[in-house]
Amino acid sequence: MQIAILLFDRLTALDVVGPYDVLSRLPDAEVVFVGERTGPVCNEVGSLHLVADATLDDAPRPDIVVVPGGPGQTAHMSDGPVHQWLRAADKTSTWTTSVCTGSLILAAAGLLAGRRATSHWLALDQLPALGATPTSERVVIDGKYVTAAGVSSGIDMALTLAGRIAGDGVAQAIQLGLEYDPQPPYDAGAPDKAPADIVSNLRAHSPFIPERPVA
Amino acid sequence: MQIAILLFDRLTALDVVGPYDVLSRLPDAEVVFVGERTGPVCNEVGSLHLVADATLDDAPRPDIVVVPGGPGQTAHMSDGPVHQWLRAADKTSTWTTSVCTGSLILAAAGLLAGRRATSHWLALDQLPALGATPTSERVVIDGKYVTAAGVSSGIDMALTLAGRIAGDGVAQAIQLGLEYDPQPPYDAGAPDKAPADIVSNLRAHSPFIPERPVA
Repeated sequence: MQIAILLFDRLTALDVVGPYDVLSRLPDAEVVFVGERTGPVCNEVGSLHLVADATLDDAPRPDIVVVPGGPGQTAHMSDGPVHQWLRAADKTSTWTTSVCTGSLILAAAGLLAGRRATSHWLALDQLPALGATPTSERVVIDGKYVTAAGVSSGIDMALTLAGRIAGDGVAQAIQLGLEYDPQPPYDAGAPDKAPADIVSNLRAHSPFIPERPVA
Repeated sequence: MQIAILLFDRLTALDVVGPYDVLSRLPDAEVVFVGERTGPVCNEVGSLHLVADATLDDAPRPDIVVVPGGPGQTAHMSDGPVHQWLRAADKTSTWTTSVCTGSLILAAAGLLAGRRATSHWLALDQLPALGATPTSERVVIDGKYVTAAGVSSGIDMALTLAGRIAGDGVAQAIQLGLEYDPQPPYDAGAPDKAPADIVSNLRAHSPFIPERPVA
């Protein structure tokens, strides 16, 4: 079972590594990190490099596609090699998935037309213009399309998917191995839970602004 | 504020990236990934490479030290360059921290003597022989030493630390940015919650077995 995880510059590392450390533990999982070119990509913060071991052409028919998000998503909203690879891979994939603003890339590639989907809470309102129905749930499954909300929700998405693929027992064993018994010190992880001033401040500085044509 | 995160072969990637994506968002944070040598290190699964940008000697006085765990921890339980760096860095660090079996490395280096500490639930019983007092909590703070339980607990540890360093509001903003409002599909993330057969099976195949001398 090949799992292809897309890497690009200025992604959010946890979007990648949360699902990776779940899905890579599935029986018969073979993970390949793909990019437009092989070699290190730099995350949004600028201090972490993850390595793409394969080009898009090297993984034409993955069983599972994972598209992370992050501010670098804005550079992948027009047709090009990434969209072409996604559309081709999606033809034969068993599951096509995203974390955070990765769903905007999937939608821009035309893969979420008429589908229910989610994204980072700061980007959810961009889905309708891309043909998808925004859904404020942490993990949204519509057919073979599985989208997760912001960043850390990729862990919940991947555990949900692990259960669908390999059964509850395998997914629970992975959860226990990762000791995923979350106990956040604050209850501020969603816009309806965090203090209003923090929500409005993040809204005012959202990194997920669509690229505008240069005048 | 320099944050040095130790990389070594066969670590668990989420041990690194969970705390990283929290702590790197602190005001004035400068993260450096250090290793015995620069270049990519390969994680325990064998399919993900993270890049060490600096050697241990390049970061002699970090403000925060983060030691991840994973099966590769067993190769760092004897005195050597990693222990020497940890002891030297700890002399001036503000916080010395670990995730998962990273606490065994800290303890083996002599830094947790008489301290309360935690580790992955499969490794907690190794702490007493290393001079620390095992504590079944997800995040344990004893003085400037902050240890987290297995893998995903590094996120909770880092948010707790973020609050101590920069205040509750900053930590809550980071939590909201990462949309860390966990909703695991199962309640199996701790040994007292998971089905007994899953717990015993993981115990029988623990990757955290101390290296034994070759006969």
